[in-house]
Formats: sequence, structure tokens, C-alpha cells
Amino acid sequence: MFQFRHWKMITVLILIALLGIASWSCGRLATPRVQFGLVIHGGAGTITRESLTPELESAYREQLTTALQAGYAILSDGGSALDAVETAITLLEDSPLFNAGKGAVFNADGHNELDASIMDGSNLAAGAVAGVRHVKNPIKLARLVMEKSPHVLMSGDGAERFGGEYGIETVNEDYYFTQRRWDALQRVKGKEAQAKEQGTVGAAALDRHGNLAAGTSTGGITNKKFGRIGDAPIIGAGTYADNRTCAVSGTGHGEFFIRIAAAYDISALMAYRHLSLQAAAELVVNDKLVQMDADGGVIAIDRQGHIAMPFNTPGMYRGYIDQDGATVVAIYED
Amino acid sequence: MFQFRHWKMITVLILIALLGIASWSCGRLATPRVQFGLVIHGGAGTITRESLTPELESAYREQLTTALQAGYAILSDGGSALDAVETAITLLEDSPLFNAGKGAVFNADGHNELDASIMDGSNLAAGAVAGVRHVKNPIKLARLVMEKSPHVLMSGDGAERFGGEYGIETVNEDYYFTQRRWDALQRVKGKEAQAKEQGTVGAAALDRHGNLAAGTSTGGITNKKFGRIGDAPIIGAGTYADNRTCAVSGTGHGEFFIRIAAAYDISALMAYRHLSLQAAAELVVNDKLVQMDADGGVIAIDRQGHIAMPFNTPGMYRGYIDQDGATVVAIYED
Repeated sequence: MFQFRHWKMITVLILIALLGIASWSCGRLATPRVQFGLVIHGGAGTITRESLTPELESAYREQLTTALQAGYAILSDGGSALDAVETAITLLEDSPLFNAGKGAVFNADGHNELDASIMDGSNLAAGAVAGVRHVKNPIKLARLVMEKSPHVLMSGDGAERFGGEYGIETVNEDYYFTQRRWDALQRVKGKEAQAKEQGTVGAAALDRHGNLAAGTSTGGITNKKFGRIGDAPIIGAGTYADNRTCAVSGTGHGEFFIRIAAAYDISALMAYRHLSLQAAAELVVNDKLVQMDADGGVIAIDRQGHIAMPFNTPGMYRGYIDQDGATVVAIYED
Repeated sequence: MFQFRHWKMITVLILIALLGIASWSCGRLATPRVQFGLVIHGGAGTITRESLTPELESAYREQLTTALQAGYAILSDGGSALDAVETAITLLEDSPLFNAGKGAVFNADGHNELDASIMDGSNLAAGAVAGVRHVKNPIKLARLVMEKSPHVLMSGDGAERFGGEYGIETVNEDYYFTQRRWDALQRVKGKEAQAKEQGTVGAAALDRHGNLAAGTSTGGITNKKFGRIGDAPIIGAGTYADNRTCAVSGTGHGEFFIRIAAAYDISALMAYRHLSLQAAAELVVNDKLVQMDADGGVIAIDRQGHIAMPFNTPGMYRGYIDQDGATVVAIYED
């Protein structure tokens, strides 16, 4: 039979258990469900501490931070993920630092050919342009294609004519001239080989309304020939967004992103195999791409606001900002 | 207690059961594992018995049969799935009946812009061209891109320059002139709208070595503007092949195929959700595309030689041939 002191001990144990459960619940409740967030990249590649001067590194960090904060301002005001993505990418396109917009690399003919794409996860609408040469912000033209045409992908002069009908801002080709990219072309031309670096910029966002969006913009590869189109304007390869899973933008050796439908695959792994965003993104970047000996990385955000930024290169310009405005910007592996 | 006649009855029942199991096993063994096969399409759309004259219907059936038999000859000789796909599509491109190659439709400027893609399921290599205007067989140029360049997708003049380096057969633009397509442009132009029909041709094959391949070729949409690129040259959208799952070619409203990464999705549904080829293809065509109000169909073959040809339109020019040379060609729903 139980004695009184047994009952006392049991009561104490029950109280301890209840306290444990209560604190565990509080812990869970105290972890806020992220309501919105933004993640961006400025390209992956052989970016090492040795390859960047301290001044250049500061400039990259500053520009990434500026883009994140501009997107954050939109999201915290209740603006759309699409607007945040477009704004962040526009700022990266306007910087000479990244291989997109102003800082686009030169192709083999000494021209700049720009590609971009954007996708709305709420309805799977998408727009993209390939090989435009006089558009200041290709990401804006991609959005026009999505919103003002029945098409997803337009190319070359035709895409520019379409943009003209909506007053897209155009520039003379010399707008894209930067000495750094021109020198890169001359170096590569001497070697009669295509450059290995493939810069790209991209953004993925979740807004307060639960909508996901992603976008990507690039100047392609230095010394590129034959009207090559990479993964940046290919929905499913370089860009994907679906409210049910995630929003993704990729950077790297685009041909491999196309061959494995990299951006869509991350979404499919979440939808069909119920992987977490991190596991899905890592499987694609650190398993599938690595098996094909393909360089690259992705940035991604899921519908709960989780963020993943895996890459298999020495560095990737990247960063994210959460709903509290906490900003993380990074370049190297560690 | 059991009597002797009970034992007799039980013995008889056991014998019957054993016979049943034996004949079931034999039945399974008697269904041969298909070693090779080829499936093709010549476009999906509002194709009805009323819309085709008996002469035109015969011409379509004959051309599909010719393409299947040419591909069969290659496969039965131990040739590759890639060769069978390229040969079948080349024959469809050379016919004025289909919207690809010779029979390509006219764009809004009165030109013909052709797209094609091909993929090798054994190594996920892929090649594609968009917006070429003087190449007799775009599928051959797509294969050159796959085999002779580090790229997957080339566009416009650049793609033609690349083909020129390998002696690809070119034609003057008037090669593509067919009265039927010209009249179609005039009809559509009057209405100031884009045509709804989107013809495409495609093929998917399994060879004796267990390799899968797929390809797609198209002239796009009548009265198309702005350098629009559809799903045909987009790996993952209009074409996909992976030896571990299946080979797919799509036809229909290309923008929707891009937005859901239709061809790759069939492969992903098989790999990640372990659906059969038929179930995966139907989910994409009769569920996902239909939910988006998008017309289209696909042809597909898996690594066991199973064939699927779902479409959600009144008709799709289609057919397949198995390793015994048994040929099935069909146009309408029933």
C-alpha cells in the first residue's frame, strides 16, 4: 500500500513533468513562425579571400546589404514577394559588381547579351527574356512578359520590341561597359577558351500573404558564342517558385542546371519526397550537381520562411534578411 | 475426425491451387519484357474527323507509319535510341503535314522560326536550338549542340553559325513555304489574335541497350511575335529523358509545359513517388495541365518499354511500334 510520503513524491514528479511540458511548449511557441523573408545571391564561383581586395569585399557586402534592405522594406510594409524580388535584383543589376545588368560580361563578339526570369509561386505564372542587349533591367522586362503577355519566354530583338510597347527603360550598349569585364574578355580570348566563372544574381522571397516568388538575372559567360542561352531564363532550371513548396534561384554552370531541371527539382523533392528545403537544396547542389562535376549553388526559401543557401564552389555572394530585419551577408565557405 | 473422403477432397483442392499458381506464374513469364520500342507524335489540338478530309487523314497515317518504321529499322538492328529519335523526327520535319521543319507555320513577320531539342537518357546530355530560320532539320542541329558543344541551348543566328561549322544542311526561307500555313497566317492576322493550334512533332525511344532518348521539333505558333520561345527547345518542359525513369516529348500550349516543367515532372513522379509511366503521364496531362486550362499531350516510353500517349485535346497524331514491329497509329480520341 502507498504511504503518504509516496503521494508527496508522485505529486512532485507530476509537477516537474508538467513544468517540463509547459516549458517545451513555450519553447516551441517562442520560436516565431517566420512570416516573411528574403534571400539573395550574387553568383557562385572561385571566390576566395585571396581573390578579393578588402575594398572589393566591402563593396560586395555593402551592395548585398542594400539589396536585402530594399526588399525588406517592401516585405515589412506588406508588399509582395514579387516586388521584393524585382527590387532586390534591380539593385544588383544596377551595380557594376555583379554579372547582370550594368556589370554584364562580354560575349565573344564584344557585346553584352542579358537573360532574366521571374516566377510567381501563387499561380505558377512566369516570365523570362533571353539575349536582350539594350534593356537596363532585364528582370523588369521578364516581369512584363509574365504580366502583359501570354508568353513565358521571349528572346532577342523581339523581346526588346515587346518591352518598347510598355516603355521599358533602354540604354546604349556602352552603358554595360566596365573595364573589369572588358579585360576579362581579352584575357579569355587570348586563351581561346570560355571563361569558367558564371556570375548571376538572384532573389527568392516569402511575403506576409504567404506568397513565394523567385527571380534570376545574368550577363551569361565571358566570351560566349552562338547565341548560347543558359539556365537563368529557363523556368525550372535557374528559377522556380511554387507556394506549396519553395522559391529558388540558381547560379553556376547553367547547362547542368538545365539538364537536371535543378530549380524545379528542389520543389519536386519537397512535394513528392517530403524533404525539407535544406535537404532538397543540398541533394541537388552537393549530390546531383557534384556527381556531374558541375559548379554552382542555389538560394531558396520555403513557405515557412526557412532559408537554404548551399553551394559547391569556394564562394557564393549571398545573404538573407528575416522578418526582424536581422541581416546575414556572406561570401566564402567559412 | 476427418474421414478418408475429406483427405481426398483436400488433396484435389491443393492440386487445383497449385495449378492455378503455376499457370499464373507462366502467364507472367509469357508476357515478354519489351526490349525496345518507339513512340511518336505529330501534334495535339482540335483535330476531329470533321476537320480532316479522308485524303489528309490517310496522308497523316502514312507519314506517321513511315517514321515509326524507319525508327524501328534502327532499333531492331541494335541501333541507338538517339538515332531512332533523330531519324523519326527528321522524317516528320521533312513532311509538309506537320508544324516542324518543312511544314513550319509562319510567325507574325511572315518568317518561319524553328525550335528543337534532343536528350540522351544514358547521361542526361541534351541539346537544343531556338529561333533558327535556315536549317532544314532543326533536330539534327540540336543533336550537334549536344554532341559538339559544351552548351545545351543555342539561339538564332548564333545557332546557325554553329551548325555551319559542322556543315549542317541549310535551306532558303522559301523551302518552308506551304500554301496551307500561309493561308493560316492570313486568317489569324485578320483576327489580330494568335492561333490556338500549336503543332509539334516528337519521338521517344528505348533501344536494345536499355538507353532512352527523346526529342521534339516545332515551328511554333502561327503569327507568333516577340521572339517567343515555347517548350519544344526547353529541356524539362517539352523534352526529357533519363534511363532511370522514362523518355518524354510534349505537344500543346507550351507556356504551361514550361510553368510546370511537364516533361521532367513525369520523370520526377516516377522517381520520387514511384508512379507508373501511365499514371505519371496522366497526372501531368489530365490533371495538372487541365487544372490550368492548358491543351496538350505527351508521348512517353519507360525503361521497360511501356508506352503512354495521354492527351486532353480532341486529337493527337500519334503512334508506336514495339519490338515485334507491331505498329499502332491513331489520331482521334476514340
